[in-house]
Amino acid sequence: MPALDKFTEYIDTHAESFIKRLSEAVAIKSISSDARRREDVIAMGNWLDGELKKLDVETKLVDLGTQVMQGQTLQLPPAILGRLGSDPKKKTVLIYGHYDVQPALLSDGWNSDPFTLTVDEATGRLYGRGSTDDKGPILGWLNVIEAHRSLKLDLPVNLRFCFEGMEENGSEGLDELIQSEVAKGQDGWFNGVDCVCISDNYWLNTRQPALTYGLRGITYFSINITGPGQDLHSGAFGRTVHEPMTDLVKLMSKLVDHDGKILIPGVDEMVPPPDEEELKLYTAIDYSIADIEHAAGGKIAISSNKEAVLMGRMRYPSLSIHGIEGAFSEVGAKTVIPAKVGGKFSIRLVPPQTPENVNPLVISYLEAEFAKLNSKNKLQVEYIHGGKPWVTNPKHWNFEAAKKAIQTVFNVTPDYTREGGSIPVTLTFAESLGVNVLLLPMGRADDGAHSTNEKLDRSNFIEGSKLLGLYLHEVAAI
Amino acid sequence: MPALDKFTEYIDTHAESFIKRLSEAVAIKSISSDARRREDVIAMGNWLDGELKKLDVETKLVDLGTQVMQGQTLQLPPAILGRLGSDPKKKTVLIYGHYDVQPALLSDGWNSDPFTLTVDEATGRLYGRGSTDDKGPILGWLNVIEAHRSLKLDLPVNLRFCFEGMEENGSEGLDELIQSEVAKGQDGWFNGVDCVCISDNYWLNTRQPALTYGLRGITYFSINITGPGQDLHSGAFGRTVHEPMTDLVKLMSKLVDHDGKILIPGVDEMVPPPDEEELKLYTAIDYSIADIEHAAGGKIAISSNKEAVLMGRMRYPSLSIHGIEGAFSEVGAKTVIPAKVGGKFSIRLVPPQTPENVNPLVISYLEAEFAKLNSKNKLQVEYIHGGKPWVTNPKHWNFEAAKKAIQTVFNVTPDYTREGGSIPVTLTFAESLGVNVLLLPMGRADDGAHSTNEKLDRSNFIEGSKLLGLYLHEVAAI
Ligand SMILES: [Zn+2]
Ligand SMILES: [Zn+2]
Ligand SMILES: [Zn+2]
Ligand SMILES: [Zn+2]
Repeated sequence: MPALDKFTEYIDTHAESFIKRLSEAVAIKSISSDARRREDVIAMGNWLDGELKKLDVETKLVDLGTQVMQGQTLQLPPAILGRLGSDPKKKTVLIYGHYDVQPALLSDGWNSDPFTLTVDEATGRLYGRGSTDDKGPILGWLNVIEAHRSLKLDLPVNLRFCFEGMEENGSEGLDELIQSEVAKGQDGWFNGVDCVCISDNYWLNTRQPALTYGLRGITYFSINITGPGQDLHSGAFGRTVHEPMTDLVKLMSKLVDHDGKILIPGVDEMVPPPDEEELKLYTAIDYSIADIEHAAGGKIAISSNKEAVLMGRMRYPSLSIHGIEGAFSEVGAKTVIPAKVGGKFSIRLVPPQTPENVNPLVISYLEAEFAKLNSKNKLQVEYIHGGKPWVTNPKHWNFEAAKKAIQTVFNVTPDYTREGGSIPVTLTFAESLGVNVLLLPMGRADDGAHSTNEKLDRSNFIEGSKLLGLYLHEVAAI
Repeated sequence: MPALDKFTEYIDTHAESFIKRLSEAVAIKSISSDARRREDVIAMGNWLDGELKKLDVETKLVDLGTQVMQGQTLQLPPAILGRLGSDPKKKTVLIYGHYDVQPALLSDGWNSDPFTLTVDEATGRLYGRGSTDDKGPILGWLNVIEAHRSLKLDLPVNLRFCFEGMEENGSEGLDELIQSEVAKGQDGWFNGVDCVCISDNYWLNTRQPALTYGLRGITYFSINITGPGQDLHSGAFGRTVHEPMTDLVKLMSKLVDHDGKILIPGVDEMVPPPDEEELKLYTAIDYSIADIEHAAGGKIAISSNKEAVLMGRMRYPSLSIHGIEGAFSEVGAKTVIPAKVGGKFSIRLVPPQTPENVNPLVISYLEAEFAKLNSKNKLQVEYIHGGKPWVTNPKHWNFEAAKKAIQTVFNVTPDYTREGGSIPVTLTFAESLGVNVLLLPMGRADDGAHSTNEKLDRSNFIEGSKLLGLYLHEVAAI
């Protein structure tokens, strides 16, 4: 039997033990945004470190220091750097993943305990917090290494690992760690890395494997309007003063049209229209209006044209209004005139947009529109945070290797996708290492990462583990 | 010495004991909206009942039953009905007040313990929760009765009392009590009432006593927009679906102009413009733009014309936007597309407006404007609550009596005001008893009822007690 057939057979025959290892990982409540669970996040880091060591991966737990959160000074969970193989004749692949998870409570609407991996035999779904985001994909890499060790197959590439425990809570300390390791050159853990592979996103639908070559950036603002010295009673003050909320809703109504067009002059215009060849990319994607409406949970697609919807997510900027700070937001009927309100909105950015070139357009537009209101209130446009978009070349050998592996495992050509959101570490790796970064998703569009009843399909976990292994072999064969 | 001079002298010479009685009342934390303080509210009712009995007022504590609040079933504090005098040759005046107060914590920003009446000798201010709203005015009536008893002066009118302990929390049970007492006719406590006097509002400024002859009504709405099945991530869904917040801010931007004009067709138009004579009323009022800007805490007056500002508060409807339920409202930067949002706004109503004739205009306008948005989301315009406005004849003998009393005590002619807010019991008394209701404020515009550092000026308490007494004599002399 050829070596790769032995590998895929091993993955199949050891599926139950892989699922058992995943259930051990899911059972550790590594919620990075909850101060009460910080010890569990650290325990999860130690568990993962132990699993890596069992597979002879050389590791280093990096102390990232402390943070102040929810009024407490907390130890940051360690980053785990790992190394397996140093053959100068082999390519070196750097793998990123995160071992922390989003919060989850049974009472949020889960059908089973979120921290007990629950197998639905009928559907083949593995339910549990972190199953798909991102414990399943991380363990996929461990499955690959275990199979090679057990079968005494030589790994075709050198591996480097960078695992963190703060991804769901701002990746505190990670950028600095990566940059400092890169700066160490030959003495750093990332020395000689030829490409990066991140498995922390999802297929575009529930049917078709995907390769992801782009992410949108973001610029996030608060439109702050002040006037009264304190909250006022609408009975006593209604129609006697300029009310900040009146001004705010007028400004917020001028940001975006119902069809998604951004009304801030110059923002949409920065993005060139797709050419014929690019349009074909979207036509080729296995996607329908039913997919978006299923995912959104409502018949509210912005267009009946599939390509328009896909481009709205992948290659155009978008503007969303998130809410208002300082106004009445409870159940009930309070008759308040809020004194100080902040309208929150963000723009998802695509190349060539950056916060640096978009923000001045946003600020000057809002100031000009506010001036038209003839209000005696005060406007301050506050930039809260931002990040650049990322797009790479999907014809790079890193992507070609993954494409061939998908063809072998799934017998289909992958969808080439760009994600609407951002995975900031992608840009950090791309810019600091100067190598190609591949996003190679394991899970499906309906996995419900960050939501209730998060799941990973058994087939995605098992075939996905095969895919990760074959991808490494294809990288070596390039 | 004439009898009335003896009366005013008694008030002056017993000021310290009146302030001491007020400090006893302020010390009882009768916060009706806080379940933990319900026993204190009931204790306050018992204290007040005891003080009335000491003055030979015949009283009845009315059990208003229970309510469910903050998850507990609570006894409602008693309403206190009182009777003093039954001379058929005298007029009968019904007096209303409330013995409950708003919440207050030192940590809210008070300069002294809110439940310790604190006298600032330099300014003559009496600081404490309930000092002006409404314990001071209630005790003003007790001061009047005590003076007459001690001086063996005959009270010039029969008195009836209706005191409640739930005014700051919806006046639970009060309307039903009033209507049932009225329905009892000769057997009821309100039999033979000729007029009503309520001291539970404020001068328009800090200088000039006022008589109040109107209150605005209200109609309160939530614009509910739904679409997605759950909150969505703006990265994944931005520019792919119709977002409820986009629709909501567009609708809310079409409600009111920065100058206070209501944009819902037909609403402003229901209110006839003032004639020459009415305009003179506003010109006569002791008020300036500086007053409104001082009260609002900002230079945001809607007009530089004093009459326009006064009419905006008193005789025109107003529309205020209060906030949004269901959207992101915290500090920070969450990238959510909220699935279900409710935009809260209310319209203060003036005659001939009522919720019944205004609501259809609101609903049909919002539905028409929503249709123009071409959104696939769903709109529901939800009416939350409402109440009618009230205006009475300020030339009625009840008002004439109060005007003469003000001229005697303060040597000025009062401002004739209409309040922008509502005191619902006013309308209940006016409609169920069919007699004139006078609003006779004791405190000043800057007393800070419902706010931190609530106060009643010593002079307002003492001269105000004289005013209440002389008002009764003027009623008798009419
Ligand atoms: Zn993730
Ligand atoms: Zn995540
Ligand atoms: Zn009051
Ligand atoms: Zn009050």
